[in-house]
Amino acid sequence: MPKPPPRPTRKFDSKPPRRTERGEKRFFKPAPKPESGLWLYGVHAVRAALENPKRFVKRAVLTERAAEEIGAKLLNRVRHEIADMHAISKILPESAVHQGVALLVEPLPRREMDDVLDDARNSRRVVLVMDQITDPHNAGAILRTAAAFGVTAVIVQDRHSPPESGVLAKAASGALDIVPVVVAVNIARAVEELGKHGFWRVALAGDGDMPLKDARHEGDIALVVGSEGEGIRRLVRERCDVSAYVPITSAMESLNVSNAAAVALYEVTRS
Amino acid sequence: MPKPPPRPTRKFDSKPPRRTERGEKRFFKPAPKPESGLWLYGVHAVRAALENPKRFVKRAVLTERAAEEIGAKLLNRVRHEIADMHAISKILPESAVHQGVALLVEPLPRREMDDVLDDARNSRRVVLVMDQITDPHNAGAILRTAAAFGVTAVIVQDRHSPPESGVLAKAASGALDIVPVVVAVNIARAVEELGKHGFWRVALAGDGDMPLKDARHEGDIALVVGSEGEGIRRLVRERCDVSAYVPITSAMESLNVSNAAAVALYEVTRS
Repeated sequence: MPKPPPRPTRKFDSKPPRRTERGEKRFFKPAPKPESGLWLYGVHAVRAALENPKRFVKRAVLTERAAEEIGAKLLNRVRHEIADMHAISKILPESAVHQGVALLVEPLPRREMDDVLDDARNSRRVVLVMDQITDPHNAGAILRTAAAFGVTAVIVQDRHSPPESGVLAKAASGALDIVPVVVAVNIARAVEELGKHGFWRVALAGDGDMPLKDARHEGDIALVVGSEGEGIRRLVRERCDVSAYVPITSAMESLNVSNAAAVALYEVTRS
Repeated sequence: MPKPPPRPTRKFDSKPPRRTERGEKRFFKPAPKPESGLWLYGVHAVRAALENPKRFVKRAVLTERAAEEIGAKLLNRVRHEIADMHAISKILPESAVHQGVALLVEPLPRREMDDVLDDARNSRRVVLVMDQITDPHNAGAILRTAAAFGVTAVIVQDRHSPPESGVLAKAASGALDIVPVVVAVNIARAVEELGKHGFWRVALAGDGDMPLKDARHEGDIALVVGSEGEGIRRLVRERCDVSAYVPITSAMESLNVSNAAAVALYEVTRS
């Protein structure tokens, strides 16, 4: 029988141990930091991220089947590993519906409102403003629909909007990598700015002044939506040109905010 | 120091123990069965259930604050207990957003399509048909929006639709108790029946034959929506008069199904 290899022996350095910032002695190298970045998942979100030249992708983990679906052309951009569904589930938050693919990315670089509006100055511009929509499912669904209706930009507030997250990205179904998202420090001020850029600003509110169809406008338009329950904050609403509602029966109190936003985007963009 | 009270002693009956169905000896009374029924939660869902004379309500558990919000008039209908948020969370599935109120109810009695259509024969009828929408969040959101647009009925299939559940009821925000839900054994046959009743049947599909606005119709209309990913099944779609799509940009593959349904309901009901 071959002899087992000798057990490695721990070696202590003869030099005195270094001290950490907090002053503890440290003999060994610290454990590697968890990988920085954000895990995206789901076929649509991942494909859109791989197709976005501005998205810095660090690593992909996916099943053979998902690799086939996404295709070699996109996957060649990135270091990727084949794994099974279970291994992928273990990387991601519990109950993430990942469809066999996870992608580690950096958040997108922030964009300035003026630049985004300027890039689109040769066509009619439609901007969607989210005031305090904190639920990532709602925010993601609104982003998805905004992208589908071809909006110029979505404006969110830094403090009160859900951070770019896997849940939001999955609900957005790739829209995060398609529609420019502008983070405003102050939504009321952003709405004021939009006015200076010549936008017609419509606040979407159940108790609005007119039905949505009367708030239509052929020029540049900004649609402001608020959180379910609270609605749009007073200071934001005051900076809009009109407030409008989606006509519904009295039996129901309101529409789901992403459904209301979808209807409003449809109404203001339909020919 | 006062003496502690004597410990209660277990008493065994002198009669021989009864036997359970499986033959085990049983000395004590079995634990009470879990209460049958369905827990609804959230202020809107609970209020709508209490307002619905056809809803059999067994029990309510709620915080003082929620009791105030719902009001004594509605609560007098039902045996109710005041509890704190934590106790209510313990009754309900994990992560249920209950807003301090839970209501134990029986499922609503089933309704027949012919009766529901007949009840509404004096006005324009709009019916929404869900083909294999299995996600309770989506199904609930669609119900909510259908109720908001005043549809005559929502038709679902028994086997493939999510059963009436707390999640669905919460997403529906009371709509389950407002809009008649008809359970069809076979959706294709139900769509055929709607044709015999004179309904113009529109299949909503990303690859539909015409934009939604060209599929409008002044008479009775049935709008058929399918699951995300799979869409409407071929046999169901073949029984529709036209197929129509919501116009979106090529950058996005599709809309979220509840958002697409909202836009379609808006388009076919707007004046």
